[in-house]
Amino acid sequence: MPLMRSWVSSANSAETPFPLNNLPYGVFSVGGDEPRCGVAIGEMILDMAAVEEAGLITLDEVPCFELPFWNEVMDLGPEVWARLRARLTDLLAEGAAETEQVAPHLVPQTEAQLHMPFLVSEFTDFYAGKHHATNVGTMFRGAENALPPNWLHIPIGYNGRASSVVVSGTAIRRPWGQIKGADHALPRFAPSERFDIELELGAIVGVPSQGPISVAQADANIFGYVLLNDWSARDIQAWEYQPLGPFQSKATATSISPWIVAAAALEPFRCAAPHREVALLPHLQDDGPMHYDIPLSVTLNSETIAQTNARELYYSAAQQLAHHTTSGCPMRVGDLLGSGTISGPERGNRGSLLELSWGGKEPLALANGETRSFIEDGDTLGLHGAAQGDGFQIGFGDCMGTVLPALEDPYKGQTHG
Amino acid sequence: MPLMRSWVSSANSAETPFPLNNLPYGVFSVGGDEPRCGVAIGEMILDMAAVEEAGLITLDEVPCFELPFWNEVMDLGPEVWARLRARLTDLLAEGAAETEQVAPHLVPQTEAQLHMPFLVSEFTDFYAGKHHATNVGTMFRGAENALPPNWLHIPIGYNGRASSVVVSGTAIRRPWGQIKGADHALPRFAPSERFDIELELGAIVGVPSQGPISVAQADANIFGYVLLNDWSARDIQAWEYQPLGPFQSKATATSISPWIVAAAALEPFRCAAPHREVALLPHLQDDGPMHYDIPLSVTLNSETIAQTNARELYYSAAQQLAHHTTSGCPMRVGDLLGSGTISGPERGNRGSLLELSWGGKEPLALANGETRSFIEDGDTLGLHGAAQGDGFQIGFGDCMGTVLPALEDPYKGQTHG
Repeated sequence: MPLMRSWVSSANSAETPFPLNNLPYGVFSVGGDEPRCGVAIGEMILDMAAVEEAGLITLDEVPCFELPFWNEVMDLGPEVWARLRARLTDLLAEGAAETEQVAPHLVPQTEAQLHMPFLVSEFTDFYAGKHHATNVGTMFRGAENALPPNWLHIPIGYNGRASSVVVSGTAIRRPWGQIKGADHALPRFAPSERFDIELELGAIVGVPSQGPISVAQADANIFGYVLLNDWSARDIQAWEYQPLGPFQSKATATSISPWIVAAAALEPFRCAAPHREVALLPHLQDDGPMHYDIPLSVTLNSETIAQTNARELYYSAAQQLAHHTTSGCPMRVGDLLGSGTISGPERGNRGSLLELSWGGKEPLALANGETRSFIEDGDTLGLHGAAQGDGFQIGFGDCMGTVLPALEDPYKGQTHG
Repeated sequence: MPLMRSWVSSANSAETPFPLNNLPYGVFSVGGDEPRCGVAIGEMILDMAAVEEAGLITLDEVPCFELPFWNEVMDLGPEVWARLRARLTDLLAEGAAETEQVAPHLVPQTEAQLHMPFLVSEFTDFYAGKHHATNVGTMFRGAENALPPNWLHIPIGYNGRASSVVVSGTAIRRPWGQIKGADHALPRFAPSERFDIELELGAIVGVPSQGPISVAQADANIFGYVLLNDWSARDIQAWEYQPLGPFQSKATATSISPWIVAAAALEPFRCAAPHREVALLPHLQDDGPMHYDIPLSVTLNSETIAQTNARELYYSAAQQLAHHTTSGCPMRVGDLLGSGTISGPERGNRGSLLELSWGGKEPLALANGETRSFIEDGDTLGLHGAAQGDGFQIGFGDCMGTVLPALEDPYKGQTHG
């Protein structure tokens, strides 16, 4: 598929993340206006609330775009999603009939503030990257026991905290937590000293289900994807995670990129799953290419420190979602599934500082002469990703976060005994 | 505190779970009517939507009781909660001035259907019962390693699945899942054969917070309590839980009792924490009695199979909530915190079949001559609880669930490759 040309000229560049082929969904505001739904096109945002009010797009009897989230549209189901994309393409394509009616509703991205694009119903975080699981397992349990026994059979995951999901650009406060050093007999309560990122892809459930669904059905139920940074306090995690899994170590914040890239926009970039070392049970087998070829990278204060690709995942989002439903777990519109950290085979492909610095034993040398084992106060971490088409890209928009120092006294001003 | 007498005569019995001292909050409907908020009093339910419409109770400028959940009331904060209880007590006390205006809004409980009393924002399940943790740890890891190293220092917990929380009386479908027998080289996908209950107390967060809060503040932020049955598929759990914790094994359903017992109603039953074997760090220390003396029991097909007490918990709900906030995790109105299974020191005090049958090795003998290691299809499990006052009880209402056979073909009728 080549670049689809738009009358919005900035959308026709090979460098824009948002050509007509993409049309990602976000929520924006300008000045003190109420946040509302928008679609990115080149350097502009199409104001969907205005376009709907003008009668240029009608999805339902009630307004779908004036609320500051895309859940209302997701609720309408896959046929309406397809109709929306077709209509947006009609309105924005080169030679469109309604150019003059649409043009007044374009807002420059530089003037807009971006908000959370959807209401997160619940957040689940998987562990579907084999290089990451192997690296972490090797550090924690030794090379022989690196992969847990279940790992090659199910996409293991844990429930995360939806209330902590924030949009790119939100500052992240270094957390306090209970930490026990290897050399200490007792734990202490202190700011995390091993605060980290995790480069992930997030999948958004757009169709509810109750009861086990097939991988094919799960694939069809996914509305779109975001980049996702699962901020992780490794020292808190090491102390708390046995036997119930990560909890407070992952609850400070999870950042997502501001634009939901529709699954439909990623269709040309589907690719096959990696080699299966052990055959999966039938209910987890994929029957088509359900992974995506999306180059990804991590920056620390603007310097690229890792490059990898979403196709490195061992389990697709569809397989994760299918597994999620096996117990009868009800899935709802707006559920967010993190893939787990996406690392590649080489050191430069690792999607966390834990892996990049090998647990702090091999600090990362930065171009400015500094080194990093984990995040330092003031550091800005970024995730970046764009599928590479023939003369165009399907970009996600960056997922950025700056880490602020821990609170001095977290209990200041509170009732104590 | 003695029994507070009401002009609703059935509320003056020493046997009613719902005397004037209690006033628990639920959601009910009669016939095909819309569900709405109600308060239990003796054998009746006070229709709060009707009472509000009649001008007998006004909490806010907008109606608070016509929506089928109590989140609107929780949102108004502790001062309004206290005002509500005071006004309800005025209206329902013996000798009340407005008896004639209130009486028409009483509905017999026998005519009402009960619904979920609140919208669950997120669900967290703790592991705060020491007897339970010791029993399970002994079975899984041996007596020497029974308690995980962190257990005496923090109330460990994991995020559960809010979408799976259902009200008492909802039938529970035995789940399928991936299971690996100890004697098998590979896992299989099959219905759970070790489906179990967990007797827990659930605490409902009524005040939002962001950032670490003290135990005293956490205690003040809890709106009320329910009984909670965290249905658990032990065979699925054993295979999936390392290293990320329980996931699909706990996602089929969690049942709660239909009435929210206000924290205020439980005030007379506060009791001190058990002996601390290791001093807690200051941020987790309670500065007053924050446990509750509530006798609890489990029935299987109406036969009592276990009796215990909420005071057996090692960590209070306030300590659980305080720990939950340490990382900066935002807490929201409607968050539900399960205590973890509440067992006592003796065999007859165990709050799960896993413990009662010691992992199936010592099946439980029932009065009818049958035995049980785990739940069989058609079994009805019940949780019961009532704090015992001087001539009155603060009851929770039963938390019941009947287990249906697993689906024959969970993928029937779905798209497959």
